[in-house]
Amino acid sequence: MPGNTFGQLFRVTTAGESHGPGNVCIVDGVPPGLALSVDDLKPDLARRRPGQSKVTTQRQEADDPEILSGVFEGKTTGTSIAILIRNQDQRSRDYSDIKDKYRPGHADYTFDAKYGFRDYRGGGRSSARETTVRVAAGAIAKKLLHERHGINIVGYVKQVGELVADITAPELVTLEQVESNIVRCPDPAMAEKMIALIEQMRRERDSIGGAGEIVASHVPPGWGEPVFDKLKADLGKAMFSLPAVMGVEYGAGFGVVTARGSTNNDTFVPASQSEVKTGSANIATDPNRHGGMLGGISSGMPIIMRCAVKPTSSIPQEKPTVDRDGYPTTIATMGRHDPCLLPRFIPMAEAMMAIVLADHMLRHEAQCGTK
Amino acid sequence: MPGNTFGQLFRVTTAGESHGPGNVCIVDGVPPGLALSVDDLKPDLARRRPGQSKVTTQRQEADDPEILSGVFEGKTTGTSIAILIRNQDQRSRDYSDIKDKYRPGHADYTFDAKYGFRDYRGGGRSSARETTVRVAAGAIAKKLLHERHGINIVGYVKQVGELVADITAPELVTLEQVESNIVRCPDPAMAEKMIALIEQMRRERDSIGGAGEIVASHVPPGWGEPVFDKLKADLGKAMFSLPAVMGVEYGAGFGVVTARGSTNNDTFVPASQSEVKTGSANIATDPNRHGGMLGGISSGMPIIMRCAVKPTSSIPQEKPTVDRDGYPTTIATMGRHDPCLLPRFIPMAEAMMAIVLADHMLRHEAQCGTK
Amino acid sequence: MPGNTFGQLFRVTTAGESHGPGNVCIVDGVPPGLALSVDDLKPDLARRRPGQSKVTTQRQEADDPEILSGVFEGKTTGTSIAILIRNQDQRSRDYSDIKDKYRPGHADYTFDAKYGFRDYRGGGRSSARETTVRVAAGAIAKKLLHERHGINIVGYVKQVGELVADITAPELVTLEQVESNIVRCPDPAMAEKMIALIEQMRRERDSIGGAGEIVASHVPPGWGEPVFDKLKADLGKAMFSLPAVMGVEYGAGFGVVTARGSTNNDTFVPASQSEVKTGSANIATDPNRHGGMLGGISSGMPIIMRCAVKPTSSIPQEKPTVDRDGYPTTIATMGRHDPCLLPRFIPMAEAMMAIVLADHMLRHEAQCGTK
Amino acid sequence: MPGNTFGQLFRVTTAGESHGPGNVCIVDGVPPGLALSVDDLKPDLARRRPGQSKVTTQRQEADDPEILSGVFEGKTTGTSIAILIRNQDQRSRDYSDIKDKYRPGHADYTFDAKYGFRDYRGGGRSSARETTVRVAAGAIAKKLLHERHGINIVGYVKQVGELVADITAPELVTLEQVESNIVRCPDPAMAEKMIALIEQMRRERDSIGGAGEIVASHVPPGWGEPVFDKLKADLGKAMFSLPAVMGVEYGAGFGVVTARGSTNNDTFVPASQSEVKTGSANIATDPNRHGGMLGGISSGMPIIMRCAVKPTSSIPQEKPTVDRDGYPTTIATMGRHDPCLLPRFIPMAEAMMAIVLADHMLRHEAQCGTK
Repeated sequence: MPGNTFGQLFRVTTAGESHGPGNVCIVDGVPPGLALSVDDLKPDLARRRPGQSKVTTQRQEADDPEILSGVFEGKTTGTSIAILIRNQDQRSRDYSDIKDKYRPGHADYTFDAKYGFRDYRGGGRSSARETTVRVAAGAIAKKLLHERHGINIVGYVKQVGELVADITAPELVTLEQVESNIVRCPDPAMAEKMIALIEQMRRERDSIGGAGEIVASHVPPGWGEPVFDKLKADLGKAMFSLPAVMGVEYGAGFGVVTARGSTNNDTFVPASQSEVKTGSANIATDPNRHGGMLGGISSGMPIIMRCAVKPTSSIPQEKPTVDRDGYPTTIATMGRHDPCLLPRFIPMAEAMMAIVLADHMLRHEAQCGTK
Repeated sequence: MPGNTFGQLFRVTTAGESHGPGNVCIVDGVPPGLALSVDDLKPDLARRRPGQSKVTTQRQEADDPEILSGVFEGKTTGTSIAILIRNQDQRSRDYSDIKDKYRPGHADYTFDAKYGFRDYRGGGRSSARETTVRVAAGAIAKKLLHERHGINIVGYVKQVGELVADITAPELVTLEQVESNIVRCPDPAMAEKMIALIEQMRRERDSIGGAGEIVASHVPPGWGEPVFDKLKADLGKAMFSLPAVMGVEYGAGFGVVTARGSTNNDTFVPASQSEVKTGSANIATDPNRHGGMLGGISSGMPIIMRCAVKPTSSIPQEKPTVDRDGYPTTIATMGRHDPCLLPRFIPMAEAMMAIVLADHMLRHEAQCGTK
Repeated sequence: MPGNTFGQLFRVTTAGESHGPGNVCIVDGVPPGLALSVDDLKPDLARRRPGQSKVTTQRQEADDPEILSGVFEGKTTGTSIAILIRNQDQRSRDYSDIKDKYRPGHADYTFDAKYGFRDYRGGGRSSARETTVRVAAGAIAKKLLHERHGINIVGYVKQVGELVADITAPELVTLEQVESNIVRCPDPAMAEKMIALIEQMRRERDSIGGAGEIVASHVPPGWGEPVFDKLKADLGKAMFSLPAVMGVEYGAGFGVVTARGSTNNDTFVPASQSEVKTGSANIATDPNRHGGMLGGISSGMPIIMRCAVKPTSSIPQEKPTVDRDGYPTTIATMGRHDPCLLPRFIPMAEAMMAIVLADHMLRHEAQCGTK
Repeated sequence: MPGNTFGQLFRVTTAGESHGPGNVCIVDGVPPGLALSVDDLKPDLARRRPGQSKVTTQRQEADDPEILSGVFEGKTTGTSIAILIRNQDQRSRDYSDIKDKYRPGHADYTFDAKYGFRDYRGGGRSSARETTVRVAAGAIAKKLLHERHGINIVGYVKQVGELVADITAPELVTLEQVESNIVRCPDPAMAEKMIALIEQMRRERDSIGGAGEIVASHVPPGWGEPVFDKLKADLGKAMFSLPAVMGVEYGAGFGVVTARGSTNNDTFVPASQSEVKTGSANIATDPNRHGGMLGGISSGMPIIMRCAVKPTSSIPQEKPTVDRDGYPTTIATMGRHDPCLLPRFIPMAEAMMAIVLADHMLRHEAQCGTK
């Protein structure tokens, strides 16, 4: 099956390239009667948009979405919703310097190896530009989850290089805190340092990696399927499907490698004794090292994931590589690139978490009912 | 869609519980003409088997597979292959002490929350016993990958607690090295220490976490799909679908968080200049921080993944928990459990990697041909 | 995707051949809490069983199902249900006379063309023996549909050769009427004639075609999806997936070819004025030429389908054919075959209708709720 | 899973309504390197277009397709292809006379029953307008099938009312013959009569049903999957997914009901002795009552299907119906409608057959190779 579709019941199919006419998604399975307009899509698109601040790429795209179907009189009809975002900043130029060379860290070589040729005007289908429509689809999922269950999904930058934000209660971080600075880190002091580091990277014609943390609160217990479609598995796939993600963990994550069972197991407690508000469930855990999923099924505790995002591969330094025939050459990836991907990564990761949760909400309720 | 099926073209569907009659898988999509018998399944089942050594659970299961369909005159026919592994060690006992209590770290609570009740005789469907048939299906995938492309998939224990194996060239580790000791660590000195640590855990009625590393060599460049079904995404899902996995990374993994683009990008080089043998491709990278996948598509370099596995939740220590009504109580998970999951985790993770690669081999060749 | 799985949310995966160890199905997605035991499966298996009467094949199979998973303390757990039916009547014999010849009307040639070789001991995977487990899965679907919505699914033989049963109100036909004679025709006078015709066919070493009609009553309005997964489309696929089905129609069917819109359109009427009881809906149609589906979505009126079933291909007459190399030869399909497929076709078709309806029930309720 | 996606490997997802901004499809899985432009899509769109002749609706739509992605330098890239066809003839008018009434034969009532409300400006998602993008997707499939295997797919009007075309060799009918008259019937004498009958229907404010026959030539033997995804099953679903189709048959179809095995079975013969050209296979049948599929797998003989299409439900006669509350009222469906659906049905049915065959080509070759 081709790989441009995600989800079973809340199902997103996408198309589009960085330098083509635009990007499209078809969101299928949205329940009827949800109030929806382009205004619901724009805020997250603005958070993902290039050119939004000095720490992102200076390339400008308006990213105006058009809803082509599935909404009537301001409400979803239950039929498939198509969203089109036209590309605007398609500078026409001479690509002869790069069309036969492989940019390090990019998919140029692997696309050629797969398909025999590629759209060499940029990343083509491998460009992060395809995430525009993911973010639009995610905005629908977020709205659905919030209306049905009061679920909030908030992501933030946890780390840039060696700079680690101090976040004691991930589930209490608010969108307002995240958006209070351009690097999307809710630790204001660390945010200042991160911004400075990113600006330094740009000056040094380099880039820097980082980690994002994404949290979903008020997810009811019981979502996710045993065995293959564990909630952690589908969330893991969703995060790894985003460009530049090299690692994913939830809860204590890689910290469990050195842990013992006697201290790693969270204790079940009456919800009334828990410091974490868990929605409707009457049982909670103390603490939440399990990251909100046990046996791959939601426990009612906040779902907490972290993603490792590599430094932008495109850097304006002359570097060795090979051409299509395998002969050594050099390349410099000029152009306007993000010196750190993290600030714009956050809305993408939130969108993917929202899509997975909306899908599993419908899947759970299809089989087990809405109680 | 229910969650007991994995893969698109090489497709595995499973059923079975820890204390029911047995576990079954149906493997669909296997090309016709592959020589296959139960003898191809037994070696990996023996590596996964409980009771295999002093560092695993002492529970005994023979795990004899029966092929019920899809093989005729010693070859696969192209139709669906059903494999049945009956459960043998189903000790009948009184479950009244645990049926209404939630074991910490287990899926007891989340299953009850999802389905309204559960098979309380053990983990039921959440038990790692379901992985027997995954390992059987994985053995078919491994054989197919090896016959078609000479692909080898080898996993090993990289870390137990603070003990880290010293492995300089993951792609050169052999199955023989891995199987040379009972902890499945190809660093013999560290293997000794790991075994001692695991035995200490059993004496202390505790358990310990660890990390496994899984490597696939000779994967041709071009496998994997852009966007959602990136090879890293499907591999990530596969690993997270295994019990106890809390984190997954590939290549440099979480190490990219502190890296700069100028040093993180691997350099493309002619394959003849690479120290790593890459099968048929004439282009390689130096080094392999990208872990064999760029843009989610295989690069021809070895695919290297690491999984964080939590310490066994079942430990024979009295611990606080709650009952089904949310009232505090205590529980001790007696029985015969693995003090460390890693030695038996390795064949499970290899199986899942093999299933993903077999699926993507067929997917790639369906669209792009076999060249 | 391989073709041994059917359904999205109520999902059936099967394996098994006519002369192998047995047939297996895994039924995934069944809601938890449904009372279920092998006794729920046996009645329909007995209706499908070979050797049940003088008008069917005299081959004997006990068709005893074993439930391997997914049921605990007499109730479905919500996890995947595996059912195994072992083959018993596997006469070992010399196949050299048929292994290299193609039986007319069978899949011998097409399987060889597809896979390069085939299980020549019988139909292998193309044998109608694979429908045993479909019937078992259908029995679960029937029970679910009846418990949730009071839906009844009843099929019967409408025609054998030129003999057409006189059925004025398909939705009023009962299982008891159908089972009152061995040919499964609720018109007793015509049933006698059909039985005589089928016996004549056996004497003449020939076989005869026929038509089955399958009716589902009390299906709520609103099931089915617009566009591709119309209820009529999935029901059509389900029926065509059964061996020997050459045509499918619903409602007025091929009768619409000569009809005018002014008389073909059913009139909407208040349900209170309708002679057909339609469950909970307050709107009905008069008459029901549309066969219970409009725009591919159930209307609340009875769903009525008809299938054309070809005469058994296996007849004990010497006939010309070719061998694997394309050279002319002759073949006679000896053995014990049904002189008319219809009596045993009915439970198969009911099962497929039930599986489709159970799947669309869950799909509809997942998106639109249970109201 | 929502129902706006069709196919596994050649996969079409659609969105759009009759009175919204437009219709979109995303075609995923197309092999790379296929020459493609909008000029490949336009001929079949023109054949489906409203307003094309006096026997179709007089509504005018230009149906200009825009390819938004997946094509670079005139060739498919292997990534998802999005096609947008904007609606032009969206007359704004007062819908108060119809928004609360149910048009007989339409999906107004069933959409309301499913979703709780509907887009009342026309058929919305149930309008045949959604088939524009199916036809565009089908044009890609046709081109792929022809380039790879020389497959031709030709449909024609077989019957309108009582008027039956005389076609002795369906596989020899050419596109030119079909397009030589406006009713798309390759029997010129009967075509004249059909045109006269359809004009009479328009004058009488009525509509008439008919049957279309669709033929695929040069399909290699071996396509289709055993059991559920038989080629006949997927083709049957495809045809039933089209609006107004009430019956589908292939080969001898419903004619088998009265047939005996001794005469119904086709005889296998060396291809050199067959009057039908069958591409590369060296085995043919005489005659072709089996319609090109045995055991649901292509035999190499022409695939021949027939669809029963009901008379247009929309007729400008005042007729009784009910309103949303179930109260009796009357309605006349004014507007510009086809007095017979058949002439425009043909390209839709060809498109669906092409999509199914392209999908099964890839599925077969994925598992069994291209030989």
